[in-house]
Amino acid sequence: MKILVSEVGPRDGLQNVAATMPTAAKKAWIDALVAAGCREIEVGSFVPATLIPQLADTAEIVRHALTHAGLTVAVLVPNRRGAADALAAGAHKLTLPLSVSETHSLANLRKTHPQVIEEARAIAAMIADMPVARRPHFEGSLSTVFGCTLEGAIADSTIQRLAGQLMAAGCDEVGLSDTTGYATPNEVRRLVRLVRAEAGDAAVSGLHLHNTRGLGLANVVAGLDVGITTFDASMGGLGGCPFAPGASGNIVTEDLVFMLEAMGYDTGISIERLAAARDVLAAALPGEPLYGFVADAGLPKGFRPGVASAAA
Amino acid sequence: MKILVSEVGPRDGLQNVAATMPTAAKKAWIDALVAAGCREIEVGSFVPATLIPQLADTAEIVRHALTHAGLTVAVLVPNRRGAADALAAGAHKLTLPLSVSETHSLANLRKTHPQVIEEARAIAAMIADMPVARRPHFEGSLSTVFGCTLEGAIADSTIQRLAGQLMAAGCDEVGLSDTTGYATPNEVRRLVRLVRAEAGDAAVSGLHLHNTRGLGLANVVAGLDVGITTFDASMGGLGGCPFAPGASGNIVTEDLVFMLEAMGYDTGISIERLAAARDVLAAALPGEPLYGFVADAGLPKGFRPGVASAAA
Repeated sequence: MKILVSEVGPRDGLQNVAATMPTAAKKAWIDALVAAGCREIEVGSFVPATLIPQLADTAEIVRHALTHAGLTVAVLVPNRRGAADALAAGAHKLTLPLSVSETHSLANLRKTHPQVIEEARAIAAMIADMPVARRPHFEGSLSTVFGCTLEGAIADSTIQRLAGQLMAAGCDEVGLSDTTGYATPNEVRRLVRLVRAEAGDAAVSGLHLHNTRGLGLANVVAGLDVGITTFDASMGGLGGCPFAPGASGNIVTEDLVFMLEAMGYDTGISIERLAAARDVLAAALPGEPLYGFVADAGLPKGFRPGVASAAA
Repeated sequence: MKILVSEVGPRDGLQNVAATMPTAAKKAWIDALVAAGCREIEVGSFVPATLIPQLADTAEIVRHALTHAGLTVAVLVPNRRGAADALAAGAHKLTLPLSVSETHSLANLRKTHPQVIEEARAIAAMIADMPVARRPHFEGSLSTVFGCTLEGAIADSTIQRLAGQLMAAGCDEVGLSDTTGYATPNEVRRLVRLVRAEAGDAAVSGLHLHNTRGLGLANVVAGLDVGITTFDASMGGLGGCPFAPGASGNIVTEDLVFMLEAMGYDTGISIERLAAARDVLAAALPGEPLYGFVADAGLPKGFRPGVASAAA
């Protein structure tokens, strides 16, 4: 069975490191990720350069990424203005975050819930005005859905209402994002079902998980249990959320791919070539710590990717 | 639901650090673990002091641990001679490792499979000679059961045969041990079922998992799925197996307890007091790296142990 590992390092990773990676290095890293078999990469975010200078070259990066046939070029957009830039650049997938914690939403996007829903509606209208063949996939992402460092747990009724409003506004999909690293395996199962009950089964297929408290891969297993088919991850575990104090650490792409392949899933990604892409990343961000257990421990003896380990 | 977290740091952890922790410090650490709510601790191993000098004081440590009412005092025994010492000291639980990889068995215990089974039989006979009230629990632990760094995957038929032979020899229980960090969630589910089919459902309730490739807690979730109720873990992730090259890292007690409590399980362990015990450990092993995500990230806002997180 195929599982899509969506690499978010060039966006979620790079926006959280102090250094700005040169544009040429970003292109080389994306090329190496594609060479490893990555089929979807979130390459940047259309936010004002004054806010996140590390991603100021997103339009150029999108254009470069589009030269890779078969790659889904994803970007984050905080509002309709960013979405207009993303559409102009030709991105295949737009993700609009909506923090179910309104406190976090105000801190992160400086918008109330109704204001974010209004942005979603405006973006969907822009997409609807495009020729069908060029319309990108539009995801509304429920961030802080497993709890917020500012508000704590968020009411189920709020989560369901916002999921329904995103779909009604014209999103193709609702993602669940553990911005703060609060998710647990049973909450993953429960909230995926909760959101599906509102948004429809087909509209909920992706999870963005963090490894803040070491539960990232355990939460992936819970997601697999309920039929999730897309998992975000960041090479070397780069990234996190700068507006959620204490939260850090995307799940590590290399470890996720290893686990999935060892479980017999087909990610389409070569672990060896992923290691080569990690070398490209390490060279481009000297001094920046990269995480990952598989990078340290190596592969098991006799490991065969995509084949569930079983005795000979 | 109650889950038993069996702390193996004083045995599996300490045998793998270069320094020998002073006996008084071991006692203080065990006292702190008990104060945190640990109900079972593997306090040492009855092996020749020439082989593992770090555990030379195991008899004295057992006697100290026995002063804690309600604590299950567990020890590792490599053979009947170690078991005799364990029985003389009054340990409540004896674990005899049997590596399903015969190559690893020869390297680790210097015994073939039939020789280990013969030891199990001799130990069971010694236990049967004791008054019923004083008989310890006797576990045969299938080590390298998820694969061996020397042999790779081990045949299912070998695993089943050895599980059956351990039970026939007189073990009360057969444990599964991921000595090498090769386990994956679906292999955990599959092998627990495989061994139960041979040894009986009631005889398979415990897993010893490592976090070598970051899958430790994901494998715990898989174990919970198939009704496992005892998980070994080591404070700070100390330990591993010195005879399995490249293998290292028990799952971290603090992270395991956090995950279980956040999922609504009752471990009986206080996370705050566990942190205090970690301080005792850190002071007793200066310079030794201690691992753990929860120790770094802290607890989620509004976290309530033993209550599955759910929105207010």
